[in-house]
Order: sequence, then structure tokens, then C-alpha cells
Amino acid sequence: MKFQDATVAEIDSIMNKAWQAFLVYRQTSLKQRADLMRSIAQEMEAAGDELIHTAMRETNLPEARLRNERARTMFQLTSYADACEAGHWLEVRIDTAVPDKGDPDLRKWQVPIGPVVVFGASNFPFAYSTAGGDTASALAAGCPVIVKAHPAHAETSEIVAKAITRAIAKANLPAGVFAHVHGVGFETGKALVTHTHTRAVGFTGSYGGGKALFDWANQRKQPIPVFAEMGSINPIFLLPGKLASSAKEAKELAALCAGSVMLGTGQFCTNPGLIVGVEGKDLDLFIEELGVAIGKATPGTMLHPGIAKAYTEKKAAALAEADVTTVAVAAVEPQINQGAPTVASATAKAFLGNPLLHQEVFGPYTLVIQCKNKEEMLGVAQHLEGQLTVSLMATDQDVIDHPEVVAAAQDICGRFILNAVPTGVRVALSMQHGGPFPATTDSRFTSVGADGIKRWVRPLSYQGWSDVLLPDALKNGNPLHLWRTINNKLTNDPL
Amino acid sequence: MKFQDATVAEIDSIMNKAWQAFLVYRQTSLKQRADLMRSIAQEMEAAGDELIHTAMRETNLPEARLRNERARTMFQLTSYADACEAGHWLEVRIDTAVPDKGDPDLRKWQVPIGPVVVFGASNFPFAYSTAGGDTASALAAGCPVIVKAHPAHAETSEIVAKAITRAIAKANLPAGVFAHVHGVGFETGKALVTHTHTRAVGFTGSYGGGKALFDWANQRKQPIPVFAEMGSINPIFLLPGKLASSAKEAKELAALCAGSVMLGTGQFCTNPGLIVGVEGKDLDLFIEELGVAIGKATPGTMLHPGIAKAYTEKKAAALAEADVTTVAVAAVEPQINQGAPTVASATAKAFLGNPLLHQEVFGPYTLVIQCKNKEEMLGVAQHLEGQLTVSLMATDQDVIDHPEVVAAAQDICGRFILNAVPTGVRVALSMQHGGPFPATTDSRFTSVGADGIKRWVRPLSYQGWSDVLLPDALKNGNPLHLWRTINNKLTNDPL
Repeated sequence: MKFQDATVAEIDSIMNKAWQAFLVYRQTSLKQRADLMRSIAQEMEAAGDELIHTAMRETNLPEARLRNERARTMFQLTSYADACEAGHWLEVRIDTAVPDKGDPDLRKWQVPIGPVVVFGASNFPFAYSTAGGDTASALAAGCPVIVKAHPAHAETSEIVAKAITRAIAKANLPAGVFAHVHGVGFETGKALVTHTHTRAVGFTGSYGGGKALFDWANQRKQPIPVFAEMGSINPIFLLPGKLASSAKEAKELAALCAGSVMLGTGQFCTNPGLIVGVEGKDLDLFIEELGVAIGKATPGTMLHPGIAKAYTEKKAAALAEADVTTVAVAAVEPQINQGAPTVASATAKAFLGNPLLHQEVFGPYTLVIQCKNKEEMLGVAQHLEGQLTVSLMATDQDVIDHPEVVAAAQDICGRFILNAVPTGVRVALSMQHGGPFPATTDSRFTSVGADGIKRWVRPLSYQGWSDVLLPDALKNGNPLHLWRTINNKLTNDPL
Repeated sequence: MKFQDATVAEIDSIMNKAWQAFLVYRQTSLKQRADLMRSIAQEMEAAGDELIHTAMRETNLPEARLRNERARTMFQLTSYADACEAGHWLEVRIDTAVPDKGDPDLRKWQVPIGPVVVFGASNFPFAYSTAGGDTASALAAGCPVIVKAHPAHAETSEIVAKAITRAIAKANLPAGVFAHVHGVGFETGKALVTHTHTRAVGFTGSYGGGKALFDWANQRKQPIPVFAEMGSINPIFLLPGKLASSAKEAKELAALCAGSVMLGTGQFCTNPGLIVGVEGKDLDLFIEELGVAIGKATPGTMLHPGIAKAYTEKKAAALAEADVTTVAVAAVEPQINQGAPTVASATAKAFLGNPLLHQEVFGPYTLVIQCKNKEEMLGVAQHLEGQLTVSLMATDQDVIDHPEVVAAAQDICGRFILNAVPTGVRVALSMQHGGPFPATTDSRFTSVGADGIKRWVRPLSYQGWSDVLLPDALKNGNPLHLWRTINNKLTNDPL
């Protein structure tokens, strides 16, 4: 099935409709929004096997993974619905008038910023796409959503879009609360990002794609925020004490890392593309074991031919660099569109001198960096670009003995992991999925967990308004039973 | 006294020192930071009359105003110190492990982003300058601060900088926690904003200045946030019911507005430069009374010759536009560097067709827009640029009768005022001082109130760390007695 790219005129019409819908949708109660989100989850489930089978055909992802991903997407919708209703994200602050000092009554909360454009991600056809985390959190905030389908799973996206549309109709909300457009060329994306009614953008994909959106958004007459996740090599630092603790430990670490590198054919944003250790027999053993595990692995089919081709080419380019040694490649020959798991190694000196080796090779590939000593390891940590995650494989004593490495690693990541691999992203309020540039365009916000709602709001202070005119969240009686900071004290009591 | 512009080499050295200081300063406890801020307040007071007299000479501001502004600046430092210690801004979220589901322990808080460059404002030599709100909130967050003195009050800035330096020395903190540079040309600012160790920028001034910083920051290899306040005309909407309620009402409103327009010779960022009403005898009376008040006023001396010249020129340009009528100018002839209070009027049609009339005329000037009906008033609200504030002069019934005007007005402001003028900015947690572009570069943050601390932090999640290794804010025992969200419940109990 083919879809037409949306024209500039169609996008203009869609965005005008979205703005009109915004004026209505932002007035809905938290409960109405939460109910809509729960209803979307139900409609996704009701889309049944057709949805799963379409996604399998379009993405080559296995059925079990897709069923899990749909369940995760439904969990996101319902858990963000709960958070929407709980209303912590409204961050209500009230300071009552102090007439003697001339201080007026001030009440601040968060208001939705307006229509949000979401670009579907290739690697998560459900969880980061049409009804994924960006869409769910924007609907919670009170913003209409316009999704540009990822061309690699446009039919899947279409089915999910229809599910959302059904839920909106059942809730008697304006149809403009959600729109779905197709576009293969960059023109569609540019028209969406530069439209005057677009107020924010969510994106998961390549650096080139995300940076283009970021630049367009900043060059607008009225710049708008772009939350783009643009790739990460998620370094794992093997600290010496941990690696030396036992041969068993080194083997187990190697097995753990190999599993993480190959999970989902290496197509997770949290895939560990870099492992950093200090040279010596412990690291040699780790590399050997990692090589064995990778060598025994079976190539997996990648998301689409473009990604498989890019993997093969980028990997070949990295392996062809001077001072890069191929440690192991999966022995089984890859079939068409498959990616062969691969591990390579290089010295810290080679890595620090060669920016190409810092680039993400999207797929089941990792590069082990051998440092001469802990000073070189510190150098690697200090010269790495921003990442979604950094993992330390370390004993408590390692952490205490390497304060500078720990500090440098903290500076480059959003999630700082001890003794675990980066794959596996818990959907929880405490999750930070977003790291310093270029991992994301804005490290101050997360795209996973209910704090993601904060991306789509801005504070508004009411000064001197009558109680009857104030939104429920700010009324004296606290009818929504929110936690509010009143005269610098946190309370859920009425005023 | 003259100061040398900092060279690029000097700035490089200062920023390297700031980064090294950051590595130490971010480890300080909340109490240490709060104590430093309180000590800076004391040192500002200890700077005594010399500080006030220097500021009087440099800014032409009256003594009482400057003494009040110093007191306000000290209040900012001490109240943000209290907020720093209370730690709500750390937004701690903990989700404990659920081994059955494979969910790891995750703990998120806010970490400082690094050295912050602050540009002193011309119109607030204390409160928005060297030890002003940006500096205070950045120090609370754990960030070193580099202030570029405003050239119009460089000596005042130098005295305050010495006060800060003394407080840092007394606290035995690294000298690099604070630096003070001078620069008349744009090169100094550019070198500061583009330095690799600079992680954020605070600015209050012109659109041209703020936009240049914003563009430089976004064009960096690693873009950084810029919080620039760039001007606002703070519209006041006179709704018909309110204006019609009595002749006394119209007169009182006119007196209130005239006072706000002329306060501080119109040199506040919240000065109301636009008043919008529906034509008729009530508005005629209002305009007449406003004209009388302005006509009787005395011109005030402006901050510096450049500002006085700009006021005269911009005002003349606005008054020279077709369809703009001068209602009244202060009868007393202005002396050198003085600005004559002025009120003009125009039709909504003229205003909507002429972007020049939307521009801020920084000084004691306001333009009354006469709309034919409430549809035209809505058009004005919908076509206004982003503002710090919008005021409605309205009865409750007016608000209920004009939902579209109210909605459009809300969309363009950060603080939404009922029946009061915009001048007078309460320093409180509930304050929002920041509005949609071009009022500020980022409407999602405030530059007044303790929530301003959030401009200088980013979230960091710890996954699977031992309690002993975690920062105090995240430890099971809750030694800092913080409010934390644990497994989606807000509590100040230990875990």
C-alpha cells in the first residue's frame, strides 16, 4: 500500500484544525484526558492481530517483541493517564496576598503550549511512534498531536492512527485533537515544524534528522522547542576492581554485555556501542569471552533494507580504520537485510584521535577501548559526546577510587547505571531518558516516564483573580485534591 | 574610571577556572550554598553608601529606589537560599526495584549544568545584575557564575563583584565560583557564549542583544540554553463592563495606568506600553483622564544618554506614523537625558496593519488602541506578540462574556493580571516572569522567584546504585528531610 505525501496546503489545513481543537481540548478536565488515553490503549488492543501482523511485515520484528511492545505502549498510555490525573506535573504554587507589603495574590500552574508534531521512530513502531510516549504525554498535557508516520511502517501507523481517531470520536472531542500525515521527503517535516500553529516537536531518529528539525525550529520567527533523540553509543566502563574480582566475574560481564549488544539485533537507542577498560589479563579475558559470545551469535533481520545497508557500511568503515582490530564476527553468514553481530577493539589513543570511532554504528556492534591506565580511561570519559546512558561495571571501592572518572561519566549522561547494561528502559517517573547533546537536543527533559508531560507545558501565573474565575487546580477549595505549594509549604489541604 | 574589555584569551582562562571550580562547587551541600548566598547579601549591605552613591552616579536612579533595589536583591539572595535548602527544586523521584518484573531501582534528581554566563541589565543595577536573580539562582543550583558587567554601571558592578568575591573567600570555596568581566563590544559576549565550558546564559536587555546570544548558543557544536528577557509592551485590556461601571471607575483606572506608565521613568520591563479598549464615551473619558495625568507629569532622567536618545527617537518615529494621534505630552520641557511622559492613540485597524506600533518604546510612553467592537479587540489580542504580562481591567462578568479575548490574552503572556497594573513584580515561588517569544527566549522558565533555579539544572537518574554511594538527597534514610516522590507517592518519610 502506498500513501501520498501530505502537501503544504494539506498541512496548513491540518494545523489550523489542530489549533481550533486546542482551544477546546485545553479546557478538558484531567479526568477527560486520562479517559481518552485509556480509551486509546483499549483501541490499540482492539486493533488485534491485524496490527501485530502488519507491524511484523513492515518492520521484520518478531511477533513476541511486537506483542510486548504493544503492551508496553498501552502501559505508557494508562500510566501517564494516572499521572495526568494525579496532577503533580501542574506544579501548583500559590502565594496569598500580603496587603501590608502590597503583595498581590499569585497562583501559578502549567498550561499546554499548543499543537505538538511527533515524528514516528523506525525502531519502535508502537512505543515511540503514533500512540507512543510523545503522543501520550502531549495528550495528557492538553495538546493536540500531529503524527508524521515513519515511512518504514506507514501501514502500522495508519492502523494506530485509526484507533486514536476512534477513541477521540467516542469521547466527543474535536477530531483535530489528532492528525496523521505521511511524508517520505523532508518537505513534509519542514512544513510541519515551521507552521505557525506548531508549538513543539518530538522526534526519535538520526542526528541528521533531529538536527535539521532543531535548526528549522530555532530559525522560525517564533522559535519552538524540539525534543529530538538523535543516537547514543551508551558507553560501558569496566573498572579494574570489578574486572579483577574473579575470572567468573569477567566471563559473566562479557555474557551480559554480549546479550545487550545483540538484543533486538542492536536496534535499541540504549544499545552499548562502546566498552572501555584498562588493558591487562582481566580485560583480555573479557574481550575473549565477548568475542566467543558474538562469534556464536546468529545474525538477525534488521528493521528495513536501509538500516541493514547503513549497518553494513558504517561497520565496514569503522573496521577499516587504522588501529581498529576486529575481535569477532558472528560465524553464520548474514542473509539479505540481516546484520552480523560484531565486536572490534582499539586503543584509547586511537579512539581519542579519531572522531569516526565515536559515531554510532546502529546495529549489533560494539567497540572495546583498551586504555593503558586509569588516566587514559579518564581521558576517554572526558572526551566522549553526550549519551543517553553511561554504565559503570564497578565495585563500591572502584567508585570511591575513581572519583574523576565517575564525575566525567556523570557529565555526559542522563541515566547513570551501576553494574547493569543500558538496554531495558523502565517506564517510571524516576526514569531519565534524555542526555546531553548530541544524544538529545534538550537534556533537561525526558521522553520516557510521566515527567515527559513537562515537555509540552509552560507556567502561567494568575494575579488577583476571583476564586470563581480560576481554574479548578488553583481554587481555594482544592477540588482536584492536588498537592500544592501554598506560601512555600507543600500541602494537599484547601486554602 | 575605565575598564578594559576582557580578551578572548582572558575569557578562556576564566572559563577553564570556572569549570574546575564547578567540579568542586557542585559537591557542596545545599546548606553551604545557602550560607554563601546569605553571606553575599551581607557583603552587599556592608558595601554601604559607596555602593548606593556609585549606582546613583552611574544610573541616574534616585537614592530611595536604589536602596529599595538593594534590599530587594538581598531578599532574593536570602529567599532563594531558603528555597535552595528546602530542595523542592531537586524534584527527587524514587522507584524501587521490582525484581519479578526485572525493574531496577531508579532514583532521579536535578544536577547543576555547569558554568553560567550572566549579562547585567541596564535598568536594574542590583536586582538583575551582578548579584541579581540569575546569579543567585545559579549559585543555588550549584553552578559557577561569570558576570559580564553592563557598561553603563560598570563601577557599581565592580563593587558588587568584590562583595561576592569576599563571600566566596570567607566560605573557603574556589575563587572560580565567580568571575566578573567587562566588555563594551559584542566580542566579549560572543566569546563568553561560545566557550565550550559555558553551559547556559542569562540575559535581560534588548531584542537584538538577546536574539544574538540565542543564535550563537544554538549554532554551537553543543547548543546551550539561553534565558533572555528581551522586552515587552505588557498590554492592558479595558473590558467594556469595567469601564462603564462608573465615571469614577474610568478616572481611577486612568490614574492607575498613568502611574504605571511613568513609574521609574517607564524603565521597567513590565511597563504598560499598550492599552486596548472599545471606542465610546467611556474610553473617551479614560483617554482624557490619562492625558491629563500624563500632561501634568514631570519628565524624569533616564538611565543613560543612550536610553534617553533611543526613547526620543523611537517615540518620535511612532508618533509620526499615519493614524497615530498624540493625546498628551508632559508639559514641562525635558532636560538633557530626560524622557517626557507621552500618551498616544490609534485605531485597532492602524495598529494591526503596522508592525512598528507593536514595538517597545522603552520609557514613559503608552499607546491607547481604540477598537470598534469586541471582535476587533479579539483581533488585537490574537495578533500581539509574546509578552511578560497581560492585564485585564474587567468585572467578573466581563471575563465570562469575553472568553475568546481572555483565551487569546492568556496565550501571549506569562503573568495574567486582573484589575491591576503590570509594574511591581513580587518575588515569590508563584511568580512567572517570562513569556512567549519574543518577550523571552524560553517561556517555560521564570527569571523571578525560586523556580528560577530550575533554569540551571538537568535531571540525572541513578540506576542500581548502593545507598552509600548515592547523594544524600537520594539515600534511603532521607537525611536532608526532603519531599520526595517514592513509587508515585509524595512523602518526606525515609524509604
